[in-house]
Amino acid sequence: MTHFADRLAAAIQAKGNVVCVGLDPRWEALPVEVQQRHGAATLAAVAAAFEEFCGRVLEIVASLVPVVKPQSAFFEACGPEGMAVLQRLLRKARDLRLITILDSKRNDIASTASAYADAAFGGTRLAGRTYPVWEADALTINPYLGRDAVEPFLASARRIGAGLFVLVRTSNPGAGQFQDLLVSPPPLTPQGGEVGAGVPPRPLYQHVGEAVATWARENLGKCGLGDVGAVVGATYPSELAKLRKQLPEVIFLVPGFGAQGGTAADVAPAFRPDGLGAIINSSRGILFPFQPDEPRWEERIEEATRATISALASLFP
Amino acid sequence: MTHFADRLAAAIQAKGNVVCVGLDPRWEALPVEVQQRHGAATLAAVAAAFEEFCGRVLEIVASLVPVVKPQSAFFEACGPEGMAVLQRLLRKARDLRLITILDSKRNDIASTASAYADAAFGGTRLAGRTYPVWEADALTINPYLGRDAVEPFLASARRIGAGLFVLVRTSNPGAGQFQDLLVSPPPLTPQGGEVGAGVPPRPLYQHVGEAVATWARENLGKCGLGDVGAVVGATYPSELAKLRKQLPEVIFLVPGFGAQGGTAADVAPAFRPDGLGAIINSSRGILFPFQPDEPRWEERIEEATRATISALASLFP
Repeated sequence: MTHFADRLAAAIQAKGNVVCVGLDPRWEALPVEVQQRHGAATLAAVAAAFEEFCGRVLEIVASLVPVVKPQSAFFEACGPEGMAVLQRLLRKARDLRLITILDSKRNDIASTASAYADAAFGGTRLAGRTYPVWEADALTINPYLGRDAVEPFLASARRIGAGLFVLVRTSNPGAGQFQDLLVSPPPLTPQGGEVGAGVPPRPLYQHVGEAVATWARENLGKCGLGDVGAVVGATYPSELAKLRKQLPEVIFLVPGFGAQGGTAADVAPAFRPDGLGAIINSSRGILFPFQPDEPRWEERIEEATRATISALASLFP
Repeated sequence: MTHFADRLAAAIQAKGNVVCVGLDPRWEALPVEVQQRHGAATLAAVAAAFEEFCGRVLEIVASLVPVVKPQSAFFEACGPEGMAVLQRLLRKARDLRLITILDSKRNDIASTASAYADAAFGGTRLAGRTYPVWEADALTINPYLGRDAVEPFLASARRIGAGLFVLVRTSNPGAGQFQDLLVSPPPLTPQGGEVGAGVPPRPLYQHVGEAVATWARENLGKCGLGDVGAVVGATYPSELAKLRKQLPEVIFLVPGFGAQGGTAADVAPAFRPDGLGAIINSSRGILFPFQPDEPRWEERIEEATRATISALASLFP
């Protein structure tokens, strides 16, 4: 299968923009007509409302943007029926030729990580067969457990040409509590020799970013970008600029644009001169630009999508 | 509702041991009779086999141990049907009066974290109602995103007297890549003054542990332990000892005992003198002490559970 970064680049070039639409459905924000059609008697009914709404969003944005990113938490909040809806929406997005990023920030060790990773990508392997589960093009993961916990995700992704986005610098106000801690490399190797002598301390997120670059360089696409990207929030433009310079082969998935406060100028440093190297996620700004009782909500979504594309147009040549 | 730490302490005292049985079902390891009864024609069939097997495990261990910990990844690997099985097993464990820890290492920001947290504990809140989803007594979470991403989990847990276990020092061989990085105190306060001068650098995991202690101290139970615990691997006994001293109010969830190599001596430093303060997880060692074609597998599970309890008996007065 074509390398993830090349598929992403082709989709970006075909659509002429770098917008990722986040699918974060919230009951209270749904159009009243959708709420009323399904009701909220059970979580299965709520999940069905999410499916109708997100399905319409996919149809509206499919010809406009290259990427969508369903947020697993909102589907898990509806229990197993919500996960079934997530599965069908991922399939629908794929059928509409959208690149899909499953945003579930999974993480675990060894064979447990493999179980998450196989489910995300090629499918669960057992009894000599492979059973599709999420079939995403990419998955978000958390790096805290270290390389050997990331490797099972790399292995599953590379088996089918999928991608990973590793949390590096997140968009929340308190992201710095651990991510900004200044860290030094360990002073001694197991053999007693000094390593990293003379390397000044740097924030943890840069250290994680460096690890991401190492993983990305293991498998570069023709476009020069790797299949392991980094999540870097739009709300920290100076960190974004530093990381772009530090990690030239790493694709950035940039949340925090729009509703969370990030502007086009804030995210500009994330890009290479050819307009590749990053995708900008917008969730609430595109999904819910209307009041629940507004009748022409589908038009509002299309307008909001086009407005987001325009706002970022200067970033893509 | 009674404080999580007090409920856990009562369960430990009632059963007279600190064993947590990890429910990590794997198709290849299931008894052949269970494999044959369900087959693997679909993931729903595999999930049904997991349900039968794990349901029997729950019945066998319910009178023996205080806690069980289903591993979300293996159920998610079976897709939505697997999540439905996870939900029913959590309910069955609760009906059997076992304390349940949902091991899904969830993490996200703001309202997304709330969605995961409400689903784990009191239930998804929407349309003015609350809909139960997982109804766990505790949840494992990843700390990388920082305090404001942990707070929604704290809020949901505290609403119903549930608990959290934050990844601090994991049991995998590569855990140290980030967790052992030496953190230097920030050189300057925003006002330009020096802070932390003279504080020696310490590993990131101790820094995270200190944050966990801060969260735990916000809400201590009568037993003197908080409702926010730490995951600390049995495979690193010296780290375990340091953390016990550093975090007297924090309950440790200790994976890595048995199959991953940890011994009773390794985990001994995790406990307070009264035998509280930690629970020791065993997954494969209790779940799969038999060959798939062995007929009396249920007896083997009971023996393995009793053997694990005996091996750890010296730790509990």
